[in-house]
Amino acid sequence: MGMEFKSLTCTSVYAKLKKLAVEAFDLTGVDALAKSDRLGRYASRSSLLNYHYATQRVDDKVLDLLQILADELELVSQFKAMRRGAVINRVDGYKSEDRQVLHTACRDIFAESAVAPEAVAAAKSELEKLQQFLEEINSGVLTGSAGQRFDTMIHVGIGGSDLGPRAMYEGLKVYGQNGRNVHFISNLDPDDAAAVLKKVDLATTLVAIVSKSGTTLETLTNEKIVGMAFEKAGLRAKDHCISITGEGSPMDNPQNYLRSFHMFDYIGGRFSSTSMVGGVVLSFYLGLDAFLEFLRGAATIDQLAEKTDIRENIPLLMAVLGIWNHNFLGYATLAVLPYSQALSRFPAHLQQCDMESNGKSVLRSGKPVEVRTGPLVWGEPGTNGQHAFYQLLHQGTEIVPVEFIGFKASQYGEDLSVDGSTSQEKLLANLYAQMVAMAIGQRSENPNKNFPGNRPSSLVLAEKLTPEVMGALLALYESKIVFQGFAWNINSFDQEGVQLGKVLADRFLTAMGDTGCSAMTLENKFLNQLYS
Amino acid sequence: MGMEFKSLTCTSVYAKLKKLAVEAFDLTGVDALAKSDRLGRYASRSSLLNYHYATQRVDDKVLDLLQILADELELVSQFKAMRRGAVINRVDGYKSEDRQVLHTACRDIFAESAVAPEAVAAAKSELEKLQQFLEEINSGVLTGSAGQRFDTMIHVGIGGSDLGPRAMYEGLKVYGQNGRNVHFISNLDPDDAAAVLKKVDLATTLVAIVSKSGTTLETLTNEKIVGMAFEKAGLRAKDHCISITGEGSPMDNPQNYLRSFHMFDYIGGRFSSTSMVGGVVLSFYLGLDAFLEFLRGAATIDQLAEKTDIRENIPLLMAVLGIWNHNFLGYATLAVLPYSQALSRFPAHLQQCDMESNGKSVLRSGKPVEVRTGPLVWGEPGTNGQHAFYQLLHQGTEIVPVEFIGFKASQYGEDLSVDGSTSQEKLLANLYAQMVAMAIGQRSENPNKNFPGNRPSSLVLAEKLTPEVMGALLALYESKIVFQGFAWNINSFDQEGVQLGKVLADRFLTAMGDTGCSAMTLENKFLNQLYS
Repeated sequence: MGMEFKSLTCTSVYAKLKKLAVEAFDLTGVDALAKSDRLGRYASRSSLLNYHYATQRVDDKVLDLLQILADELELVSQFKAMRRGAVINRVDGYKSEDRQVLHTACRDIFAESAVAPEAVAAAKSELEKLQQFLEEINSGVLTGSAGQRFDTMIHVGIGGSDLGPRAMYEGLKVYGQNGRNVHFISNLDPDDAAAVLKKVDLATTLVAIVSKSGTTLETLTNEKIVGMAFEKAGLRAKDHCISITGEGSPMDNPQNYLRSFHMFDYIGGRFSSTSMVGGVVLSFYLGLDAFLEFLRGAATIDQLAEKTDIRENIPLLMAVLGIWNHNFLGYATLAVLPYSQALSRFPAHLQQCDMESNGKSVLRSGKPVEVRTGPLVWGEPGTNGQHAFYQLLHQGTEIVPVEFIGFKASQYGEDLSVDGSTSQEKLLANLYAQMVAMAIGQRSENPNKNFPGNRPSSLVLAEKLTPEVMGALLALYESKIVFQGFAWNINSFDQEGVQLGKVLADRFLTAMGDTGCSAMTLENKFLNQLYS
Repeated sequence: MGMEFKSLTCTSVYAKLKKLAVEAFDLTGVDALAKSDRLGRYASRSSLLNYHYATQRVDDKVLDLLQILADELELVSQFKAMRRGAVINRVDGYKSEDRQVLHTACRDIFAESAVAPEAVAAAKSELEKLQQFLEEINSGVLTGSAGQRFDTMIHVGIGGSDLGPRAMYEGLKVYGQNGRNVHFISNLDPDDAAAVLKKVDLATTLVAIVSKSGTTLETLTNEKIVGMAFEKAGLRAKDHCISITGEGSPMDNPQNYLRSFHMFDYIGGRFSSTSMVGGVVLSFYLGLDAFLEFLRGAATIDQLAEKTDIRENIPLLMAVLGIWNHNFLGYATLAVLPYSQALSRFPAHLQQCDMESNGKSVLRSGKPVEVRTGPLVWGEPGTNGQHAFYQLLHQGTEIVPVEFIGFKASQYGEDLSVDGSTSQEKLLANLYAQMVAMAIGQRSENPNKNFPGNRPSSLVLAEKLTPEVMGALLALYESKIVFQGFAWNINSFDQEGVQLGKVLADRFLTAMGDTGCSAMTLENKFLNQLYS
């Protein structure tokens, strides 16, 4: 693969798709959903999850062109190259991170021969360290400085070191090992740490500090706050703290930490849930076996993502349908609406993973992009949302494509039949009803009760939210995001857009400390107004 | 006030504003923020909170035209009429709810003469019932069926009966009375209830069931699940459950509830946080005095919202600036980013309140709207977001106006000086830095490090998140939403867009139960595919 990538506008099908978008498939047409076996044909099935897209505004013609689009942009071969260690985190001709992108190696541990052997060996070695560590905790060989067994973990991180692990933990909370508790501290807001420290018994608490660089301001600040709390409680912080950080970072230091687990420069924070960043906290809480199941689910989807047929490759299909909605139909945002309370933080994780990856304006060649890149991604769990913002989804002037996520069975299995149906059945009935309502709408003489319909959605449906399925869902979206970045021909793996804020924050901190100073800088002028 | 309302496009300034939008104020101009005392003049101050909008893309000319816009659309006189009981929840010539809109009456309890005396008297009477109830609980006169004092409340509701109270509770969690706990159940997902019931001691638990109609499917289902749990624990559910519901609803029944508090048909769910919907749970947790402070803060903003000068009336100013961004500059979404972990659920509440109110396509005359109505509203607390989706805010192709919210002091007051500044100072420095970075951007030779800037934002800044300030923030956004609905000339107070989903959900439930049936209906065909 050369470093010359094609852009969307240079494909042979761009103009054709633009033209077809003007009269895109009308979901409100007579019997539009039911005829031509649309419901059956517009479903892609895989071992862990199925994808139903009959309620997208596409027909066979559009799908065929999207296949050509995917082929001409070499989306799958770029994905294969990524998994095999190509240096794709770069912008041509300019200073950039110049790295491989190998989050997939974290879960490529089940195949007989790994596609990126070195990275997979490194991942396995960290897993072995983790297994050893967990055994020492479980057996009581390793205890806190007052000799008590660990039963609680505080995970300290921010952004990619926080949102993914937190979303996965919430998703799998029901499967916790007896007696184990987990808390998260992320925000620079001191109230965030204070609230957690109030709740735990530090004598039985492990703190996992997560920062790839070992220099993240928020995380170091929270680490110090936690350290003071241990001191105050008469405990040795060093015996309670572990670090998850890059090899050789300031935090990779046995003087200060009970143990250090490594992140690698080829894994971005927002793609790190299957690395030690997610691994330590999830294994502590769920046990290592469940974490391995989680990895297995992700690996299954990574395999699927190498298929070239968009109708079989679910993440690829989601990617090109997203591009159809965003670049051809012109919809600015995407809602991800899981019908599962356990996935309440999954949209926030995807929001980060998607928007930080694809909220870019520069091609991999360094030239400005010519089309819109990443959409706004947002969402809340249903049915809650139904009683909230769904009003706008049905009758607002902004059209919002929706990705629904549902499960046939609940996690707890504690359900109750009321009026002839269980809550899980009611939940699913509501999900399906929303898809159909958005698609077909409803005519009414009363304009206020009129639903225009023709609002696209799709559904990821799985049997039950197990660790394996959670891993599959995660990898599904990771790969979708990667495919879209390839299609927009941008570098999805850096985040220069967060740098300027850091620089300016330092200037404001200086200005805040500089009380005697007259209002000369913009920062001073700003502060004078805010505090007057 | 007649029932003929002007629309945006019919104002004398619409075309002028459209024209000015083409060359809107450029925040990246040389010294653009600092010159002409912009930072000082573009700040609106009030007793509880200040609003800074120098980083919006407006100048004096635009502000003057927005003032004319507000005047010609009679936004303030419509607001006054609303507070005084005008029947504005209606669509002219069509069957509609035909109701007053009087959520403001819940807090108009401090003035010597109330503007809507009847509704205020009703609100006061509910507050007295609540006071009596709390005294009985506090003194131990009223206990659970096993004779134990109540220390825990489960709040069961969904949508407007859930998001507002939950966001307020999270916002004020630090001020809880010793020993009192609160949990929420909302989702139809049976795992939501199961997770809460696992955590509480039912013998000391009160359950507040909230549904205006007394017929909300999700809430009744969760009520039954909770009822079964009491039975299983050998407790009488009736002695543990109270209802918050419309007078005369199926849930207004002393046979089934320890006590019933009333909601009124003139208060919509999404505007009900200052009614008994928020009142019962917040007073149980914070004490009645703190709840009254919360109401006082809201009342203060309601007063402010009657000023006609947009530069003094903060909610009105936020409303017209929002219209400038959405209808004239064409930005589709709005991010609300509170720099406070306690406000983590506030964006979700606003998302509901805003999108359910203003996600409409029909004028109050029944005619279709001619301009875009409510934007997508979304957000997460900073600084977490900085490590996530801010990449897109700075360098993406979608421009997202931002409303920042900040506080000069933290809630817990447990802060630590690290490297010469406290966490709260660092938090604020980050907030200010983001505003400036989005506004002025940064030129770089490296296109990937280039920040275009000119991305608008504003800041609501208060001293500290107290109950009074929380009430003020809530009322600020409620009034902003109401003003925008008036400006778009839509009925912000109904929610016909949620009805179709309910009807279709019933059809799906029937189809799911109807196992012997061949695939005739769309629902059956759909289910056949999903379950094949």
